Amino acid sequence: MKVVIVGGVAGGASCAARLRRLDETAEIIMVERGPYVSYANCGLPYHVGGLIEKESSLLVADESTFRNQFAIDVRTRCEAIAISPENKTVDLRNVATGEVTTESYDKLVLSPGAAPIRPPVPGIDLPGIFSVRTVPDARTIRTWIEQGTTEPCGMDTYSGFQTVKRTKRAVVVGGGFIGLEMAENLIHLGLEVTLIQRGNQILSPIDQEMARFGERYLEKHGLRISLNDGLTGFQQAANGSLEVLTKSGKTYPADIVILGIGVKPETDLAKQAGLEIGERGGIRVDDQMRTSKPDIFAVGDAIEVKDFVTGQWALYALAGPANRQGRIAADVIAGRNSRFRGTQGTAIIGLFGGAIAWTGVSEKVLTRLGDTDFEKIYIYPNSHAGYYPGAKMLAMKVIFRKSDGRILGAQALGLDGVDKRIDAIAMAIQMGGTIYDLEEAELCYAPQFGSAKAPVNFAGMVAADVLRGDMPLSHWNNIESGLLLDVRNPAELEIENVPGAVNIPLPELRARLGELPQDQEILVFCRSGQRAYYATRILVQNGFKARNLSGGMMSHSVILREETVGGTLY
Amino acid sequence: MKVVIVGGVAGGASCAARLRRLDETAEIIMVERGPYVSYANCGLPYHVGGLIEKESSLLVADESTFRNQFAIDVRTRCEAIAISPENKTVDLRNVATGEVTTESYDKLVLSPGAAPIRPPVPGIDLPGIFSVRTVPDARTIRTWIEQGTTEPCGMDTYSGFQTVKRTKRAVVVGGGFIGLEMAENLIHLGLEVTLIQRGNQILSPIDQEMARFGERYLEKHGLRISLNDGLTGFQQAANGSLEVLTKSGKTYPADIVILGIGVKPETDLAKQAGLEIGERGGIRVDDQMRTSKPDIFAVGDAIEVKDFVTGQWALYALAGPANRQGRIAADVIAGRNSRFRGTQGTAIIGLFGGAIAWTGVSEKVLTRLGDTDFEKIYIYPNSHAGYYPGAKMLAMKVIFRKSDGRILGAQALGLDGVDKRIDAIAMAIQMGGTIYDLEEAELCYAPQFGSAKAPVNFAGMVAADVLRGDMPLSHWNNIESGLLLDVRNPAELEIENVPGAVNIPLPELRARLGELPQDQEILVFCRSGQRAYYATRILVQNGFKARNLSGGMMSHSVILREETVGGTLY
Repeated sequence: MKVVIVGGVAGGASCAARLRRLDETAEIIMVERGPYVSYANCGLPYHVGGLIEKESSLLVADESTFRNQFAIDVRTRCEAIAISPENKTVDLRNVATGEVTTESYDKLVLSPGAAPIRPPVPGIDLPGIFSVRTVPDARTIRTWIEQGTTEPCGMDTYSGFQTVKRTKRAVVVGGGFIGLEMAENLIHLGLEVTLIQRGNQILSPIDQEMARFGERYLEKHGLRISLNDGLTGFQQAANGSLEVLTKSGKTYPADIVILGIGVKPETDLAKQAGLEIGERGGIRVDDQMRTSKPDIFAVGDAIEVKDFVTGQWALYALAGPANRQGRIAADVIAGRNSRFRGTQGTAIIGLFGGAIAWTGVSEKVLTRLGDTDFEKIYIYPNSHAGYYPGAKMLAMKVIFRKSDGRILGAQALGLDGVDKRIDAIAMAIQMGGTIYDLEEAELCYAPQFGSAKAPVNFAGMVAADVLRGDMPLSHWNNIESGLLLDVRNPAELEIENVPGAVNIPLPELRARLGELPQDQEILVFCRSGQRAYYATRILVQNGFKARNLSGGMMSHSVILREETVGGTLY
Repeated sequence: MKVVIVGGVAGGASCAARLRRLDETAEIIMVERGPYVSYANCGLPYHVGGLIEKESSLLVADESTFRNQFAIDVRTRCEAIAISPENKTVDLRNVATGEVTTESYDKLVLSPGAAPIRPPVPGIDLPGIFSVRTVPDARTIRTWIEQGTTEPCGMDTYSGFQTVKRTKRAVVVGGGFIGLEMAENLIHLGLEVTLIQRGNQILSPIDQEMARFGERYLEKHGLRISLNDGLTGFQQAANGSLEVLTKSGKTYPADIVILGIGVKPETDLAKQAGLEIGERGGIRVDDQMRTSKPDIFAVGDAIEVKDFVTGQWALYALAGPANRQGRIAADVIAGRNSRFRGTQGTAIIGLFGGAIAWTGVSEKVLTRLGDTDFEKIYIYPNSHAGYYPGAKMLAMKVIFRKSDGRILGAQALGLDGVDKRIDAIAMAIQMGGTIYDLEEAELCYAPQFGSAKAPVNFAGMVAADVLRGDMPLSHWNNIESGLLLDVRNPAELEIENVPGAVNIPLPELRARLGELPQDQEILVFCRSGQRAYYATRILVQNGFKARNLSGGMMSHSVILREETVGGTLY
């Protein structure tokens, strides 16, 4: 059997190595357009920032490893330019010489990846505007920053000596993974960084109110964020530096621009071969990674996958699924019955020592799908037992089916322990778990690591209280009428107050029930929701119509005020 | 309804608070023998060590919180001394005055906890021998260390000035949670600490070879560990300090002794009331926390629980389950149908910045139960992507059913990310997950937090390779015959070598197959098992009888040599 694999990074490399393990006799050719196979593209921003010092650290496995350990015919700087599904051949072009050869195949695997979007705006080809996809990209950006812009910046001459470092101001376009990671690393390098985002939030996979926490945190670390401002073009300033032009009419000066607008599946070759392309623009495959043509498989960022939670086709550029898809394609080629379960979009981004992570579906996607059978809760637990030094507050949102309690998604952020909470919930989602399973989960507890009622348990308990009818819930963005009841202590009101709210501290509530109306809905809140829950229970059992305003003042500050209060989270 | 709760810490306090939320009208009395309710007993060692500075930090919720927020009649320094199930009354003794009153109840909840074992050996009552259970215990130990032993230590006079700190040498008896946590904290206080352990390993819930990693790590941090040496008694030395006597005939000098031998359910009251006691010595309850007498419930460390994995009755002194049991008892008393799922024994201990964690059943418990339908794997993955700075090696053991792949247990240790791997596997176990679920799990990945093939995925892949028959496995402690084949590079052999093993580096293997016997079993190993897996695949497909020696040299060093090699893990 002869197998040709197009693309030698995550999905392709995994497929090649797995296939060799399953079949010693197969002839395996792996071609890669770039100079390196199996490199760590997730590390590129940190190489630019200098945290990963050596470029060689990014090369996970080199050509010789594939040749010697796996007996794979690796060809770098070799591009697949045409497929003939009828003849089962693929044309390969040597990037250096331009020479084209034709290889036959029994099975063909496409792992071309996704390319950074370069919007067709005026000035897009000016020097100093970079995408971040490959090791050479990172090298070019590092060189640009070290050498400075082409013309000297006048502003530096005042310091009285000749400086060679003239790259001072960066503009990052787009607040996704690459944009934010690059922004962090450029700030570490001492640049002034402005992030321009067309939409109304960073990190589009999560919901806006959760993104707000992240935005305030990034601003605290020196990032300037300009939301709701789309890129319209670039022009060169008199001193040779760049100017970034936006829809609002603003001009942002820049010595370097990083494009982090998003990626687009590389489907030219697939289209030429007549493979079915899905509605989201990726190569359509079945759950065994087969394309619409027999004997052609596709994996990685170029394909559409079924979202595990929504059942919808989706594009996810994630390394974990790409690796698993590569393995599954190899299994199927080797005659096995492996199947891909779909992707639930689990992801994390580390920023300035903190983290933002999520899994499953967001509220806005459910809303876009017209799905109303869900509820959400917000909790703000400590990362570990409050009595042990160093505990940090987490912000968590959990979304679940109203009808059966099935967990649909979760989003979390904070300075510590974000990853493990999302990992545990991701595992529960994959197993079809419910909020009742979170409630009963038995996770590691010692005071350095968590709480006896772990944040994951706590999320399950709160959600279960809602579904069992013990805690009628309301949300800040959904208040139509009702009495706002603040059960915090008077000292806490001084930090921030909600105008019009009545204050009865929780310990006084039972004695002061007579002050409250029986015929009106009472919306109860405290700092994060726990005391409001206790108060709601007291009120409901005493015949009042009460609801807990989920997440209390913590949620209020991001949902209604679009900011975070008093540095409580970070 | 009138409910009396005996015991005001984890289980009792959770039960009281939950019951109030479910029933505003119930009369709830909570009695606690000690001076505090709801204190953080898990924090006591860190208070002794000074990391948790203030004693008040350990008091999670005080009497007034229970009174004001929950309208609960809290009585501290109040001991339940007798129950009459027939009359539904309980006798309460005021610890200070000795006065006894009788309270009637509709429902009674027992949460008496478990008491530290004080073995009846000679000298057990000498001054300076402490258990660690309550806030006053911690206070007494702190005072003892600050004030020193009763007689001056001659050894200090040579320094030429009068020192008031004479507590220099500590002996900890028992290598469980409390013993190890106290050992760490006493080392932080500058004491010379020796741990005496009757059995052949620390941390009896995990398997011996995994404990070895922990023992070597603790020794590196200054702990002296004496295994296989049982306590026989204590005596006072001429200078007034203590001497700890052991079975081996050794005498260990000590200025302070901490007993961490284990705990025993407090069942005197339950026995007096005629409640059924289980074979493990705990109060027997059903999955709704009901004892053998109507209207009496029991929760927490005093009860026996069903082990979720083995289905056996077991004793677990863990805060998480105790809290959940308290909630369930409250639910049932309030007329709900909540049920306890059992305990899978998930636990973690933090030591000198590292962690040891586990969930589910150990190999030794399965062996004790006569269960042979299981296999185990060892892996040694990085805590996060190797190319991102700061990655630390993890040691992981995963145990699973041979017949269906169900995950039975996992043990892990290392300096970073131990908790989240065990949490994810714990969640999978709770959901009845298999190793195939671990293989396909979609967990958070960014280079700071993990790898595209996460350690949990990797464990699943290795285990699945075994069950699918792709990777015949063997273990170092199970070698009877066969050729040992070392596929590491020659340079690695210099670190440590296995006598009699043949060395063929993996990249040369295909070319040197002729050197290997076709008729003999070949046991392949490398450093941690990955290259040996590749080699095993090459050999098996070429008609050889090959097996991978799971965990390679990393496992060899703890299983056969009982030590760790060259600081690779820490």
